[in-house]
Amino acid sequence: MSSAPVQVLPSFVQGRWQSPADEGVVLPDAVTGEPVARISSAGIDMGAALDHGRRVGGAALRALTFHQRAALLKSLASYLREHREELYALSARTGATRGDSKFDVDGGIGVLFTYSSKGRRELPDGTAYLDGAVEPLGKGGTFVAQHLCTPLQGVAVQINAFNFPVWGPLEKFAPAFLAGVPSLIKPGSRTAYLTHRLVELIVESGLLPDGSVQLVCGGAGDLLDHVTDQDLVSFTGSAATAQRLRAHPAVVANSVRFNAEADSLNCSILGPDARPGTPEFDLFVDQLVTEMTVKAGQKCTAIRRALVPASRIDEVAAAVSAKLAEITVGAPGAEGVRMGALAGLDQREEVRRSLKSLLEVARVVHGDPDSVEPVGADAERGAFLAPILLRCDDPEQPQPHEVEAFGPVSTLLPYDDTEHAVHLARLGKGSLVGSVVTADAEFARDVVLGAASRHGRLLVLNRHDAAESTGHGSPLPQLVHGGPGRAGGGEELGGIRSVLHHMQRTAVQGDPQTLTAITGQWVPGSERTRTDEHPFRKHLEQLRPGDAVVAGPRTVTEQDVAHFAEFTGDTFYAHTDEEAARANPFFGGKVAHGYLVVSLAAGLFVSPEPGPVLANYGLENLRFLTPTYPGDEITVTLTAKQITPRQNADYGEVRWDADVTNQDGASVAKYDVLTLVAKQTR
Amino acid sequence: MSSAPVQVLPSFVQGRWQSPADEGVVLPDAVTGEPVARISSAGIDMGAALDHGRRVGGAALRALTFHQRAALLKSLASYLREHREELYALSARTGATRGDSKFDVDGGIGVLFTYSSKGRRELPDGTAYLDGAVEPLGKGGTFVAQHLCTPLQGVAVQINAFNFPVWGPLEKFAPAFLAGVPSLIKPGSRTAYLTHRLVELIVESGLLPDGSVQLVCGGAGDLLDHVTDQDLVSFTGSAATAQRLRAHPAVVANSVRFNAEADSLNCSILGPDARPGTPEFDLFVDQLVTEMTVKAGQKCTAIRRALVPASRIDEVAAAVSAKLAEITVGAPGAEGVRMGALAGLDQREEVRRSLKSLLEVARVVHGDPDSVEPVGADAERGAFLAPILLRCDDPEQPQPHEVEAFGPVSTLLPYDDTEHAVHLARLGKGSLVGSVVTADAEFARDVVLGAASRHGRLLVLNRHDAAESTGHGSPLPQLVHGGPGRAGGGEELGGIRSVLHHMQRTAVQGDPQTLTAITGQWVPGSERTRTDEHPFRKHLEQLRPGDAVVAGPRTVTEQDVAHFAEFTGDTFYAHTDEEAARANPFFGGKVAHGYLVVSLAAGLFVSPEPGPVLANYGLENLRFLTPTYPGDEITVTLTAKQITPRQNADYGEVRWDADVTNQDGASVAKYDVLTLVAKQTR
Repeated sequence: MSSAPVQVLPSFVQGRWQSPADEGVVLPDAVTGEPVARISSAGIDMGAALDHGRRVGGAALRALTFHQRAALLKSLASYLREHREELYALSARTGATRGDSKFDVDGGIGVLFTYSSKGRRELPDGTAYLDGAVEPLGKGGTFVAQHLCTPLQGVAVQINAFNFPVWGPLEKFAPAFLAGVPSLIKPGSRTAYLTHRLVELIVESGLLPDGSVQLVCGGAGDLLDHVTDQDLVSFTGSAATAQRLRAHPAVVANSVRFNAEADSLNCSILGPDARPGTPEFDLFVDQLVTEMTVKAGQKCTAIRRALVPASRIDEVAAAVSAKLAEITVGAPGAEGVRMGALAGLDQREEVRRSLKSLLEVARVVHGDPDSVEPVGADAERGAFLAPILLRCDDPEQPQPHEVEAFGPVSTLLPYDDTEHAVHLARLGKGSLVGSVVTADAEFARDVVLGAASRHGRLLVLNRHDAAESTGHGSPLPQLVHGGPGRAGGGEELGGIRSVLHHMQRTAVQGDPQTLTAITGQWVPGSERTRTDEHPFRKHLEQLRPGDAVVAGPRTVTEQDVAHFAEFTGDTFYAHTDEEAARANPFFGGKVAHGYLVVSLAAGLFVSPEPGPVLANYGLENLRFLTPTYPGDEITVTLTAKQITPRQNADYGEVRWDADVTNQDGASVAKYDVLTLVAKQTR
Repeated sequence: MSSAPVQVLPSFVQGRWQSPADEGVVLPDAVTGEPVARISSAGIDMGAALDHGRRVGGAALRALTFHQRAALLKSLASYLREHREELYALSARTGATRGDSKFDVDGGIGVLFTYSSKGRRELPDGTAYLDGAVEPLGKGGTFVAQHLCTPLQGVAVQINAFNFPVWGPLEKFAPAFLAGVPSLIKPGSRTAYLTHRLVELIVESGLLPDGSVQLVCGGAGDLLDHVTDQDLVSFTGSAATAQRLRAHPAVVANSVRFNAEADSLNCSILGPDARPGTPEFDLFVDQLVTEMTVKAGQKCTAIRRALVPASRIDEVAAAVSAKLAEITVGAPGAEGVRMGALAGLDQREEVRRSLKSLLEVARVVHGDPDSVEPVGADAERGAFLAPILLRCDDPEQPQPHEVEAFGPVSTLLPYDDTEHAVHLARLGKGSLVGSVVTADAEFARDVVLGAASRHGRLLVLNRHDAAESTGHGSPLPQLVHGGPGRAGGGEELGGIRSVLHHMQRTAVQGDPQTLTAITGQWVPGSERTRTDEHPFRKHLEQLRPGDAVVAGPRTVTEQDVAHFAEFTGDTFYAHTDEEAARANPFFGGKVAHGYLVVSLAAGLFVSPEPGPVLANYGLENLRFLTPTYPGDEITVTLTAKQITPRQNADYGEVRWDADVTNQDGASVAKYDVLTLVAKQTR
């Protein structure tokens, strides 16, 4: 190993790039073995870094709304997209092909875009998230509760694995940032030079508030000794390290939220319907080969256990072997290469050790664990390994369900029937993902429901979804990523779910008026503000939660009901036939249409002239609570409930609470009216 | 201590009552010191108990639907209510007054009723819970995902504290049972005889499936050595024990879900507006006295830190002291007694030790830590303690924020301003609950939002909600109970939230048709079943997800729009004034009312004659997606999406997917129609 004068990666902590106190160790190129960089965290003050994140980064992030943070994520994503070629180039040195690099780099940038978009669509333009509905706690309506989520006032410590140096850090950073929690990124050492460049780009962009991202290259040192109850630790990597970190004294003593995502023994199951010649048979084979070879199998979601009907195992072995024979291993970028190198020679040693253990109960169907001829590279200096397909005819042996060879290795296992397939799938004792390749919906249902409690994600692949399927191995930002037990017991991504994992949920109890002041959203039971001016005449900036209009009464006549039935065609007997309506268990006589009630209510609360209210774009949670009988008089009260300006538009959304009551004061219908309202300053 | 021949509490494991292998230790009466029972778990096979729960209890529970489990909870609650006098009587021996006993016993039974009711209203009548909406994953609509939650296939190991021997076990049991997960209850030893009787009643009721509840009286032994990834551990008790259990090797190795609820240093804050003479001043004083004396202050939610404006501390000290002087301590049931005994003499020793530490920085304002004259009891043999009010004039001293005296003890602390109050509240480093007593909504907002990330629950108490308020110390089943950091980092109750904590969330990806088969709910993009028979003519038992009707087209004429405006009064310019409508950024010309579109759609899909469809009780998620212009032809497709029979009614709920399209096939409006549909077999 050469020790040429390559850069020692600096860390970015306390707002500046800091070089470590020693020269550290060399990170070699996975393909050539040449040094790419050196790495060390010696002398980096971990406690000060966390403190900086909490004080500077946290305060800055909490001063922004969800929508402002979402807009920054989008800008950052665009900035990184402009620089992705540079990231691809560095990625090749990790052994990744261009396809592998896109998976990592574009995938990571995609997570930022998705969180930006979800943040603007699914979160309010404020700093607290209201979780669930207002809970009435007393009959008189003076005591209610609302769960709200506020950002933890600490740092998200993100300990990443080496295999996704871009996607890994970004998929942890995006939800933390959107939640308002600063990140401290610790990359996996082997490929840290790529994450280092990623963070350099983020810093160079100048887009994010000070302290919202820090980077520690090298060992974690005493980092975890400094975590408090408001910090979080998210870890991706081996199950063994996950255990060590989870039991760290400071993590335990402070009940620190600890999220682990560990390699697991994921399975893919071929359905009994998928005979050779069916699209599903080919899909199974192709997917298995893809999962074995993308990133040279160094994916925590890769298929380690291929479960096939016992009667099909020979055919599957032959088909997979034939496909694997087409895979050219070699230097990324070299002609025809479909699979690159492992991340390092030590990693290859580890895979070979695991293979030895698997070979106690399995035999090699395809590939030579000890020899490969890489194209365009030196077999001695690069961390190359041939894809290896194993077969274990006794699927109750423990090794295939417990020993993970973190490389291009999978084991074929036979199953007898559906129940047996579920049993074998569950033997992984907790997996990130599993897939079922079948066109038999009943088989899919039985396997999915049977295996679900030991899986974070399950994919059903068949001829119907294959063209659009993103595949077994791809976590998606909108779906949860993580699994129970062996897979670490964590949950990342899943859209807004992982944003909430960075926040504290608090049940707030009080009178409605106080809850309105706390949440910024009008809580039923609070005061309403009624002025001469109709609230529909107010622009978004003028409108306040509680601004209300009361309109009516209007008598709903028998003629109205008959006419509405005639006009719309809705001649349901309860509106048209007194005798039949009397037999209905809920009405006891002819009633007005629900649609008539809400239409008349709109006629009452409307402000006809052009004004700030641009459109009614929807309606939610409509419940008809009391029948309206001919002769009843209805009154509607409309109250501004939630006002959401859009950052990049000249209007915003206003949600109104609508309460239609009858002459006795009973609520006839309650619902939310959704409108778009113009800003004054367009 | 006498060792009279009292019962050795048996454990209920593996479906039968088992006596321990030794005589165990005596549990004394908290008031008289006489032995109540003996306790030991020697010889109880913990591994076999867990295995029995998993195999027998889990299988039986998973065979029931949420609604069936909810119905059993209700029956059990009613059964226990009939036997509550017996529980009160035994509860008195723990030192509890009748009021304390009701808090414990009725509170616990109330949790069962609430979970029964929430289960029927908020969960489907099935075995899997669908979490969130269907996620589209491809533009073509052939690849979608649905998160679903299925019960963990393990046992909920519930390690309870001694202070709520009925409420504690029931608040852990109810959500587990509703989720479909069997419970293994380990009571706090000191008061285990009461929990033992509770479980005896549950077993005697014969209501619950075999294996769904087990009881281990005595030490946990090697219980945790046997937990797997599918089990859960919920713990209530001291922070020190929580740490030990959280780091248990089997818990760590298997990523076992561990939920801790630990005593915390909860605060109550008097607002600066609450001068003597205001209702809030009195509410603050009364609540503090209540929290100090109910259960003799042995509540993990009790107020330990009373934060008051520095200028008011003398007045508050005087007022609280005056109220405390009215508290008579003595034997539960004795004339005039308002506060009973601590749970045992050892517990009193522990409180006195903590007091010593607090007195390093605080002084006694009221009460004598070393002497009390209990009414109707012997001061030597019963675990009595006077209520003790302390005052610490330097609120930055660590002890009041760190040292918990788990008894009738609170410390007054002065604060300067709002920011300082928030700072002090946060010094608890994670609390179950805090309260703010104020009529100033702005102060309430600043304190709540500032302190929320270190609190699981925050109560704002004032003249408006006092009459209905359930108080600082009462966890409610519909609100989360738990807190970050010192409070254990857990979350219990919170309605359906804690049911989901017992389930695994899995993202299921596939084509719509397969997802329909898996979820039992029609997923858009799946096939629709259209027959000659209108689906509104089918009874609940005949109806299947996917049953559909397509109706239309109907032309929406200019006359229709004009007439509807005239008839309903909804003369909004976009429907009536071509020129003005043209200036609207979304319409570009006169458009039909959204309410007209949905009314006409109802007229198209209706089946007028009396039949199984009894009523349309609501509508959800209505979005107007494309404007309808005069002359457009609309068609509506209505598809049965979710069918929910009610267990105890002759009808059920059917949710229909409504899609209104125009002549170009574009969706004009999408929404869910909610109906009640009769069963055939009434």
